[in-house]
Amino acid sequence: MIFASDNWAGAHPAVAAGLTAEASSFSSAYGSSDLDRQVVDRFSILFEREVAVFFVGTGTAANALALTSVNRPGGVSFVHRDAHLAADEAGASEYFTGGARLCQVDGPMGKMDPAGLEAAIARYPAQFVHAGRPMAISVTQTTESGTVHSLDELDRIGSIARQNAIPLHMDGARFANALVALETTPADMTWRRGVDILSFGGTKNGCWCAEAVVLFDPERAQEFAFVQKRAAQLFSKSRFIAAQFAAYFRDDLWLENARHANAMAARLADHVRRSRRARLGWEPEANEVFPVLPKQLSSELKAAGVAFYDWPSVDWIEKKPNPDETLCRFVTSFATTADEVDRFGELIA
Amino acid sequence: MIFASDNWAGAHPAVAAGLTAEASSFSSAYGSSDLDRQVVDRFSILFEREVAVFFVGTGTAANALALTSVNRPGGVSFVHRDAHLAADEAGASEYFTGGARLCQVDGPMGKMDPAGLEAAIARYPAQFVHAGRPMAISVTQTTESGTVHSLDELDRIGSIARQNAIPLHMDGARFANALVALETTPADMTWRRGVDILSFGGTKNGCWCAEAVVLFDPERAQEFAFVQKRAAQLFSKSRFIAAQFAAYFRDDLWLENARHANAMAARLADHVRRSRRARLGWEPEANEVFPVLPKQLSSELKAAGVAFYDWPSVDWIEKKPNPDETLCRFVTSFATTADEVDRFGELIA
Amino acid sequence: MIFASDNWAGAHPAVAAGLTAEASSFSSAYGSSDLDRQVVDRFSILFEREVAVFFVGTGTAANALALTSVNRPGGVSFVHRDAHLAADEAGASEYFTGGARLCQVDGPMGKMDPAGLEAAIARYPAQFVHAGRPMAISVTQTTESGTVHSLDELDRIGSIARQNAIPLHMDGARFANALVALETTPADMTWRRGVDILSFGGTKNGCWCAEAVVLFDPERAQEFAFVQKRAAQLFSKSRFIAAQFAAYFRDDLWLENARHANAMAARLADHVRRSRRARLGWEPEANEVFPVLPKQLSSELKAAGVAFYDWPSVDWIEKKPNPDETLCRFVTSFATTADEVDRFGELIA
Amino acid sequence: MIFASDNWAGAHPAVAAGLTAEASSFSSAYGSSDLDRQVVDRFSILFEREVAVFFVGTGTAANALALTSVNRPGGVSFVHRDAHLAADEAGASEYFTGGARLCQVDGPMGKMDPAGLEAAIARYPAQFVHAGRPMAISVTQTTESGTVHSLDELDRIGSIARQNAIPLHMDGARFANALVALETTPADMTWRRGVDILSFGGTKNGCWCAEAVVLFDPERAQEFAFVQKRAAQLFSKSRFIAAQFAAYFRDDLWLENARHANAMAARLADHVRRSRRARLGWEPEANEVFPVLPKQLSSELKAAGVAFYDWPSVDWIEKKPNPDETLCRFVTSFATTADEVDRFGELIA
Repeated sequence: MIFASDNWAGAHPAVAAGLTAEASSFSSAYGSSDLDRQVVDRFSILFEREVAVFFVGTGTAANALALTSVNRPGGVSFVHRDAHLAADEAGASEYFTGGARLCQVDGPMGKMDPAGLEAAIARYPAQFVHAGRPMAISVTQTTESGTVHSLDELDRIGSIARQNAIPLHMDGARFANALVALETTPADMTWRRGVDILSFGGTKNGCWCAEAVVLFDPERAQEFAFVQKRAAQLFSKSRFIAAQFAAYFRDDLWLENARHANAMAARLADHVRRSRRARLGWEPEANEVFPVLPKQLSSELKAAGVAFYDWPSVDWIEKKPNPDETLCRFVTSFATTADEVDRFGELIA
Repeated sequence: MIFASDNWAGAHPAVAAGLTAEASSFSSAYGSSDLDRQVVDRFSILFEREVAVFFVGTGTAANALALTSVNRPGGVSFVHRDAHLAADEAGASEYFTGGARLCQVDGPMGKMDPAGLEAAIARYPAQFVHAGRPMAISVTQTTESGTVHSLDELDRIGSIARQNAIPLHMDGARFANALVALETTPADMTWRRGVDILSFGGTKNGCWCAEAVVLFDPERAQEFAFVQKRAAQLFSKSRFIAAQFAAYFRDDLWLENARHANAMAARLADHVRRSRRARLGWEPEANEVFPVLPKQLSSELKAAGVAFYDWPSVDWIEKKPNPDETLCRFVTSFATTADEVDRFGELIA
Repeated sequence: MIFASDNWAGAHPAVAAGLTAEASSFSSAYGSSDLDRQVVDRFSILFEREVAVFFVGTGTAANALALTSVNRPGGVSFVHRDAHLAADEAGASEYFTGGARLCQVDGPMGKMDPAGLEAAIARYPAQFVHAGRPMAISVTQTTESGTVHSLDELDRIGSIARQNAIPLHMDGARFANALVALETTPADMTWRRGVDILSFGGTKNGCWCAEAVVLFDPERAQEFAFVQKRAAQLFSKSRFIAAQFAAYFRDDLWLENARHANAMAARLADHVRRSRRARLGWEPEANEVFPVLPKQLSSELKAAGVAFYDWPSVDWIEKKPNPDETLCRFVTSFATTADEVDRFGELIA
Repeated sequence: MIFASDNWAGAHPAVAAGLTAEASSFSSAYGSSDLDRQVVDRFSILFEREVAVFFVGTGTAANALALTSVNRPGGVSFVHRDAHLAADEAGASEYFTGGARLCQVDGPMGKMDPAGLEAAIARYPAQFVHAGRPMAISVTQTTESGTVHSLDELDRIGSIARQNAIPLHMDGARFANALVALETTPADMTWRRGVDILSFGGTKNGCWCAEAVVLFDPERAQEFAFVQKRAAQLFSKSRFIAAQFAAYFRDDLWLENARHANAMAARLADHVRRSRRARLGWEPEANEVFPVLPKQLSSELKAAGVAFYDWPSVDWIEKKPNPDETLCRFVTSFATTADEVDRFGELIA
């Protein structure tokens, strides 16, 4: 019963097969193969406009290079306090940008409070050298709290970005999970909302190692090519990432995987709702569930082989919780089975 | 007839199979899985001492992080002018170190001239702040000219490093090819020669994406963990690299692959020697052959579908070559077939 | 009536004279002159132990290089949210460290709340690569709110630093003002409280351009020399800074200047206390006064030629102030006259 | 008899007086004072066009920030192998740019060989990510060999810069010495030759600490303001630099100082020419003389209190010099006296 993270799963069989199918052929290196190009074209079709796409190895790399591509002296990026790039990437964005600051913005359930975002930006007037100046806004979709920004919420952030002439980045490590939760399209969830750069994640949703930076302004591609290469993120056998994405998109596998993961999360949440010992910290919206468990139950579950993390989020701590309880995070994936979820359900019944 | 680079090959079937075998299991992330640990242990056995090992995505990353791990203010690293990290990595080492300089040292056939190396180091007295100070020596084995440093040559460089108290890095993107060429052991080719940090490459020799930084002083592991994570090189599904290495080492596949590649290069060189139209620029020692071709022949070969690069190395240019001729690079790999080589032989006969 | 900042003043006549006295002589460059050495020795006497001292050009440089000297991958420094290096240096510390993060800690009146500091540090466990790891604590003395940490308060922070094995930096841009306010000694206000590195400011207190980084562990001097030189902060005519410090320390001019500035602030505060139209936001402790003024009065004062800044500090905003009032900052210096202060007093009477 | 460097001199009395005159006044900080503005305007008049000017503390800072202002991912700057920023600044330019490389170009007497420069640029095709790409050319005027580029030579470099669309920087640490040597105007020696950015030095020619970055495209000023501030080079009492420049330019003091220094160098060279024991390594063109001395004479001179440096330049070493001789550097300044030079002449007669 593995609910620790969606990155504890392996790879979808179709992704593994797609990769194996590439093993025996030769192809030109560093992203110039036919397969690389085909997959880039596929992105343009998916997003309903010409995009520039760069394959990278990790979500951290995607985020850090996205910010690096809009880097400027004194730059400040605005992100939610729980955003992965603020909380879990060891300062990679600050490092790759050579010191551009992440300004953390508060807000419940993993979403920046729009008024708080505007106030934060206002503290960095564009011409006032002493403070630094705005460089980017980064929004996480699906959020680190397992919630999903509505299109209206994204519009609000996009509007703030445009009004302040700040590029808008989306960390889409769990892009597909949000997309199917909203039942919308990639274009509607990104550039139509004002997103300029997207970290498009495949790793958590059925790939082994497939992340991409998507630039909605393809004219910035040439510059980004140097950003990527200098950062050691141009893979010689780039097509091994392309092959994963090819399988990922074929027959909408990516959407199917995400729907499955979300359904498993909903099923797990149902078990929590029905439990007399546990309850939901908040409603799940994609593939992450945050139950409140008595510490006793948490220990029992771990002893029984259920893998999950305690997750003392600020949202939770601010409620001054009962010290005998703990907030936990359960993540489902394409590889989670209903049986596994139901066995967990029995343990907390 | 693909001789453009060993990174144009796909993956060895055993590597692909090893990867696929991991697809259906769950495992903890970020390098903490059992498989990750087993492969790290395997490195210690291979190198006959406890080593710290970090998996990264590209050879450029391995080199850049190796230098970053010994970085210091005003640092200068000494490398051959043709070294991959000086010539082909878009300044990644300078970028990751925040500006530590690469001082290029001359020398024929891809090898730093030892006296030139000593003279270069002497221009940076350790206490003279104006110039900067020595930080690392980096030696490439197999060199970018397809030659292999003898153990004595490595000893000489190791001795210079020790005398100057400078860490010694080895770029082993083609480590296996050199190893089998010298018929020596990993330990004898590295730390017994004074190497402190190794970029250990698997990608060019049968993997898709498997590179490792090997620290011969395992006490530096904790520090390196932050160097790696901050640089976006800690893969969540790290075991997909570990699985490649596991297959790579099993039954000495890696040595077999390298022997095959070297044998194919020798076979190709034989064809060149026998040709009336071509000749060898110099003797190949591993899996790269540098023939001198009439430009006319070069064009014919390309038209006939032979993939290779013109390679106007300094060694070649310094000889003031005949302008009707061109130096070319042909690289063989685990996937090169004797038939392919022989067909090329017929074309130049 | 200039109360905008202590850096609007010129130079004390003795400092100007000391500088002029150096004009006609020759001397070796880059910090190696006799005068440089004498002033360094003077610092050791002042601080009652051997210290290493490096002259730099700006307070921002002093702070940024101090943090750079303890920089490490994934490093996080803990500073008050209003600290000059967090709020007013355009990200210089992040830039010079190549991306080490500043974690802002809250607390009233310019002082980090000790419990909040401990909680912030606890979010960065030393071995957890994902978050980053503690690198430095920086405390500002005099604070940006014009308050002064008591020796006990400094002890508390020093104790937290030691318990967590984190170097402690003090931003002493207004060091002298705090020192005379506490009627203590340089040693008692620094290394005896656990301070490892000090930004020692002279510019705001009577010099033109005289800042120094003081390392209480002189063994770190050699390393710092490269930190300084690489950062373009080794002045060829370094002695022009030394000459300022020589005059600054002679006959305790620096203490006299600070006492005068503090006395002028107290006098100004008295005028505010007596005014029917203004009141003190909080009690001044050194050379900065923060009155609450009706906006109407603020406008009148500016029209009358009084120079000062509106200063909407978080402390003030959190109190949800009357929108017709504004918090303002008045700074006095060695050059402020009692007459000037009294003329201001008449304006607000 | 101090000929070690022009930065061993103090300050011209007029500069010291100008500084002292500023001591007793108040003025707004961070470059916004009337005096700052007046001096900036003076630069525009001097250069016969509107320029943006930023005062910085050291020549190293001027050079490093100039390159930083044209920085880009994978950037490579082309400089003479002896250029101060390549040889004597501890890697500051690489550091401030976050790793942009300096590519050293050879050429006799401190001047890049134009064909060599073109060849070096050609190794970095603008779209080839593996090598990096051209970012700047930096030319030193007066060179580190004491020679002066003619206007034609500058035109040739400017032409290469324009043809390759690369910004051209001039390191003018000894700008005035070259200017009076050529008997030309600031405009003719800079932007009319294609120079885009100038490091304008005053320190070596009579100031204590007065360096400026001059941007010939003033539209880049806003961006540069952040480059400067982030790099800790925005001085709070910026006017103390402005005051030096004001005195420096008044009544053409700067030209007079440079003419004097050059004349003293010519006088010193005459003594060398007349000496039976010494000879000139090459003809001096500004304020630096490079005599070849028997080592015995060099020792005698040092014992007699003559300060100068041995200067084993590549130009000299390449000639395989007599091991009993040494090349030395003698630098004159505004403060050098004819008497001092003549006393030296007697010692070598």
